[in-house]
Formats: sequence, C-alpha cells, structure tokens
Amino acid sequence: MSQTPPDAALSGLRSRPFPEQEYLDRLRAVQVRMAERQLSSLIIADPANLYYLTGYNAWSFYMPQCLIVPVEGDCHLFTRTMDAAGAHYTAFLPVDRIHGYPDYLVNRPDTHPFDWIVDRALEIGVLVDEPGAYVAAELDAHFFSVRSYLAIQSALKMSALVDSTELVNWVRVRKSPLEREKLHTAGKIAQRVMETALQELEPGRRQCDVVAEIQHAQALGAHKLGGDYPAIVPMLPTGETAGTPHLTWSDLPLQRGEATTIELAGVFHRYHAPLARTVVLGKAPRKLIECADATNEGMAALLEQMRPGNRTCDVHREFAQTIGRYGLTKESRIGYSIGIGYPPDWGERTMSVRPEDETVIEEDMAFHVILGMWMDGWGYETSESMLIGPDGPDLLTNVPRGLTAKE
Amino acid sequence: MSQTPPDAALSGLRSRPFPEQEYLDRLRAVQVRMAERQLSSLIIADPANLYYLTGYNAWSFYMPQCLIVPVEGDCHLFTRTMDAAGAHYTAFLPVDRIHGYPDYLVNRPDTHPFDWIVDRALEIGVLVDEPGAYVAAELDAHFFSVRSYLAIQSALKMSALVDSTELVNWVRVRKSPLEREKLHTAGKIAQRVMETALQELEPGRRQCDVVAEIQHAQALGAHKLGGDYPAIVPMLPTGETAGTPHLTWSDLPLQRGEATTIELAGVFHRYHAPLARTVVLGKAPRKLIECADATNEGMAALLEQMRPGNRTCDVHREFAQTIGRYGLTKESRIGYSIGIGYPPDWGERTMSVRPEDETVIEEDMAFHVILGMWMDGWGYETSESMLIGPDGPDLLTNVPRGLTAKE
Repeated sequence: MSQTPPDAALSGLRSRPFPEQEYLDRLRAVQVRMAERQLSSLIIADPANLYYLTGYNAWSFYMPQCLIVPVEGDCHLFTRTMDAAGAHYTAFLPVDRIHGYPDYLVNRPDTHPFDWIVDRALEIGVLVDEPGAYVAAELDAHFFSVRSYLAIQSALKMSALVDSTELVNWVRVRKSPLEREKLHTAGKIAQRVMETALQELEPGRRQCDVVAEIQHAQALGAHKLGGDYPAIVPMLPTGETAGTPHLTWSDLPLQRGEATTIELAGVFHRYHAPLARTVVLGKAPRKLIECADATNEGMAALLEQMRPGNRTCDVHREFAQTIGRYGLTKESRIGYSIGIGYPPDWGERTMSVRPEDETVIEEDMAFHVILGMWMDGWGYETSESMLIGPDGPDLLTNVPRGLTAKE
Repeated sequence: MSQTPPDAALSGLRSRPFPEQEYLDRLRAVQVRMAERQLSSLIIADPANLYYLTGYNAWSFYMPQCLIVPVEGDCHLFTRTMDAAGAHYTAFLPVDRIHGYPDYLVNRPDTHPFDWIVDRALEIGVLVDEPGAYVAAELDAHFFSVRSYLAIQSALKMSALVDSTELVNWVRVRKSPLEREKLHTAGKIAQRVMETALQELEPGRRQCDVVAEIQHAQALGAHKLGGDYPAIVPMLPTGETAGTPHLTWSDLPLQRGEATTIELAGVFHRYHAPLARTVVLGKAPRKLIECADATNEGMAALLEQMRPGNRTCDVHREFAQTIGRYGLTKESRIGYSIGIGYPPDWGERTMSVRPEDETVIEEDMAFHVILGMWMDGWGYETSESMLIGPDGPDLLTNVPRGLTAKE
C-alpha cells in the first residue's frame, strides 16, 4: 500500500472545498490564541475541528485520531494506518505530515493507539515534554476518550496537560466569505428537504416512509449541488411523544389528529442549516394553536434582537418576555452557534442563547434558534438558521414559520 | 412539563422492542460480572450499552448522560432534563429512576453536568464513596468525555475509579433468541438495500444520487418492517479513492471504467447487519479480477472456520494463508463482533478477527467479516454478517459475493 498515488494532488484539489490559504489562515488564528495562552501544543480530536483546520473528512472518528498543532510550525495528523493512506485526498497536508498507527492497536485492553501517537509526536517534536510547558487537549470533545487522555498524561513527565476549553471552536464562530457561501447552500438544501417533509406527511403513512423521503432529499441536495450527511438523523416525534425532543422514528403509521414536530438539516460540505417545523394532520387543538401563535410572536421578537452588539442573553430575555405574556415559559436554551457539524451534534459547543450567556453577537456569526415547547404529551417546535449581517439576521431558509395543518 | 403522561405505560410498551424480563436478565448478567470483579458501581455512557440494558433510545448522546448500575439493586438513568422527560417512552425504567440535570449546565466551561450527576448519584446511593470501593467507568467509550471522568474523580474522595474494560460489551457478545430475530431482520433489510445500491450505480450518475436511493431503502426496510438509522452512513469510495476506506460521498459523477466499493448496513431496532460489495462500471481490470477471486476464495475458506471452538486467530490464519498463495497480504483485522450499533460505530468493540486475538468462538455470537483490500489507487471489498450456529456460520444476507461488473 503506497501513500502516494500519482494524481493525489489533483484528486485532493477537487475534493477539498477550500483553497489551501484558508486552512493556513485558520491555523494561524489558532496559533495566535495558543501563544496568548502560552500553550506549546494543542491536541485536537473533534472531527469538526480537524475538518476546519485541514479539510480532513472521513468516517474514521470512531477510532482514536488527532491533529497536533504546535504553537509555531507545522501541524501533523495521526490516524489509523488504513485511514492515513487516504487522508491526503481530503486534508491539505502532505503525506509526510500524516502518520498511521498500526492496526493491532485498535480495540485492545492492554495497549492503546494514543500510546503510539504520543511517542511519535514527541519524536517529531510536535509535542514537547519539558518543565513549564502546557499541552492542551479537548477535554469535553466527542471522540477523545479517557484512555486517550490517560495515555498522554502518563507519557508527559514534565509538561502539564490542560483543557483547551474549546479553543478551535471559538475560532470557528465568525464565518469567512467562503464559509458563508457554504451555509447559504446548506440553507437552500434544508428548505428543499423541509418542503419534502411537509408534503410527505400524511395520515396512515409510516414514520419510516416519511424519513425515507427526507433522507433521499438530503442527499440529492438542491440547485445541482449534492447534499452531505447530517450530524443528526431526521427527528419527527409524533403524537404524545411530540412532548419530548430527540426521539427518532419508528415504523408506526402517522395518526389523523396528531401533531408531528420535524427537526432536520440541509448539509453542504459539512456545513449545516438545521430547521424545525410542526405539522398537525387534521384540525389543530386550540392549545396547540395558541402555543404556536405565542411562540411565533416570540421568534419574530427575538429575531429583531439578533444583531451585532447585543448579547445572547438579551435575545433570550426578549423571547421569554414575549411568551411570558401568554403564560408560557421555557427552561432550556433557545439557540446555539452552528457551522461545521459531525455526528452526533451540529452545534459548535460555544455560545448558547440563554440567560446565563453574555456573549456579544458579532457580524458573520451563525446561529440556530430553536424554540421547542415540550408539553405534557404534546409539543410545538419552530426554528430558524441564520448568519448575522451588519443590521440583523440573514435567514438561511424561507419556509412559512407557523403551524402547518394538513386536512 | 410533567413526567407522567397518562398512557406512558402503553406507549412505552409499543415502542420497546424487548419485554422487561429480557432487560432484567441482562442487568443481572452485568451485576454478576461486577461482583466477580468486586465493583461497587458501574457508570455506563455507551449508548449501545444503555439501549441493551434499559431500552433507552434517543438521539441524546451528544450531551453527557449515563446509567449507573450498583452491584446490587436498581440502576438509575441520568440525562438532560429535556430528555429525561421522555426517557420512559423507550427505557423500561419508572420515572423515579430517571433523573434530569438542569439545562444551564450544558456547554459551559465553569461547570459540568457530571458534577450534578455524581452528587445526585451519591445522594440516591447508586454510587458509594468509601474506602476499598471500586467504581468502574467506560474509559474508552464514545460519549464519555475526559471532563465527565474528571468530575467523577474529583467527587470520589475514597472510592477508586477504574476502567470497566468493556464489561457490558462483553456481556453483549452472545445473542438471545429475540436478538437473533432482530439480526435476521436487519439482514433482510441489508440485502434489499445492497440490491438497490447495485442496481442504482450507473456511469454518469452522481454519487449522492446513489446514496439518496440507498438511504431511502434503509429507512423503508423490508417485509413490512421499517428500517432504523445506521451507525455509519453509506460509504462508496470510487475510482482511485477505492484504495482507501471510510471516505464518504461527493456529488461527482461515477465514471465508466471505475470501481466502487460499497459499505452499508441494514438496521432493525438498532441491530446492524453490515455488508460490503464491489462494483465495476464497465470492464474490470485484470488485477481487480485476480484480487477479487483470491479474496473470495479466502472468504470461503475462513467461513469454514467460523464455528464454535475455533479461535478468531485461527480464522484469520486461514484467510491469510489462502490469499498468501496469490501473493496478497492484508495488514488490518478482518472482522469484529456486531449487534447493537449507534453512531459512529457498528462494531461491539470486543473481539477482532486478527492474529493477536485468541477469543474462542461460541454459538450465538455475531460477526461482520470484512475483507478490504486497499491498493494503490484501487481496491476490492467484500463482507458477510453472520450469527454463529452450532456447526458454522448462519449468514444474515444472501447477495452474490463476487465482483459485480455493470456494462
């Protein structure tokens, strides 16, 4: 198995969604923040951060892997040998900066890929072990296991191992012009997919049949641009389970008179535009209509506040006050930062729209504002994905926001 | 928000794929192993293990959550409040054994849901902090972050926190009669989905269009039983990228003369039957035909060895010797245990078919044997999913194993 197929450069180019300079700029921004925090190296396992910094994009994150960024100089990628062989197809890195650990290390109780990775990283010099050095790792990221952490900790005799506190995620919050294009395309796909979902929901139809049409539309994409896989599968809790989020589908038929909340995303080159709507098959009960009206009024009010200079808590207060006038409350956050997403989450794990969060909104940030009103055996959901423009939100989709009643 | 909708019992029943006794038996088997290892409590975060032990099934694993099993007595589930409200729809647990942490704890640098979970678990008594006690956690599982681990470690002043070393995963390896039914249904779905994929691959067609049909078929299911979402999206590396696994699709068209390796799964009630095949659009190059023939002969030879009493390394040796006669080698493992799967992996993370693994094969185990021959710019893949019967493998699908050439 060679690591250098003859036309790797060409195929890499056509499969990489950003020019190399954009990755170099992003890495530089990360290194500036690392220097400010006096970090000597940063160990990155979050697949969204790997993709952001190098373009690396493969379903290999179920095995240990990481990118190590030194405060100065070149970053190196460490992954399973079978994945290292093709990493240059998507990552901009040359093959001598991609390292594959042997396959016998996977799924073993007595040894671990990170034992190998740390040794190799110290040898290359991308990790240092010396008094006073700080090495950061992503201690709350998906796909960075405790055993990976303990392997690094036991190998570093002098350097201190600290939490990155989502350093790369925070660099990602303001979107470049090319990223904004990706998000707009994702929005066009999301709109097409939601229109499909609203059309396909019918009494008597099995939930899985509607999901089949949704997933079909997600992959087809829109405007000749193909869709990518979503970080979260389509969710459509229905009937009494519409009172709780995050339940996936069954093969039971949709019932006349029941409401279904639909949450899905359009995805383009890993950029996500999530969208939620609620459909009732038949006549909507009065309490659902009242809840929908109040929530939609809350959405209109909060969108007025989604502008540079306001804080995320200000946006939340506007919504809480609006629905409060109708006797409604909502305990959970109503929005979060979006951009690149990998399973199992399309949120960026940075700011949230909630009372305790005082992040100042800036131009070119992106949010998914989702108003999930989960009641006792019923519910209403609506959402919008948006980029922040100079004067307010630039919505990524255009789907009527209210409750859809289908007779 | 109430946690007790009036007909929760009924709706729980129809959405839960196993009778309560099966969960109680599984929990008992786990507690027996815990007692053998003198563990006082086991903290479980792997969503496949949560589903196995309680039926809990929701897309909530992107946030911290766990089941805590004491060595004697009842287990308790801890999850985000919005998910706790509906956990009884899928888990067999009564509402007083499901605990929701407040939403303000999510995605915060200064506090963490596991701070709350450990406090509550100690209060309930499902976790103990006393000299000589051992508490185990899943230190290499997905979705158990380092911050979760550190929160538990800092709260336990006297108990030792140790690795579960996949305790629950090892209980899962032998399948009950009801589980075997689920796997057979998953196999029927996998067969239908692969037939769809083989039919839809055509020169000039975009990769994403073929994926759209595959995902559509995955959700439709087979024999009136709906399909569930796969732990891994359909993968179809094509052309020169067929020389590397785990690349997902693009919207580029399939080229005449190129080969595509397809890896997908049929899924029923979270049980997976994965399946891989290779298609060439046009005339197959001689090297690909020769590789396919040798690999298929290797598959036939190794399947003869997939029987109770043999070791996984014996199976590997049989394959290695067979392809070795044709001058071929394969560095990576050629199979692993399957059953329940959640993103990002459908493997059980227990035994592997490889030279270093001496697990003795037993009746009612389930395997995915996958022969991925990744070469320099091209590749061949074929696989079979199977249950182990008294005399040999019981294949879950029936799809011709050789290279498919489509003119």
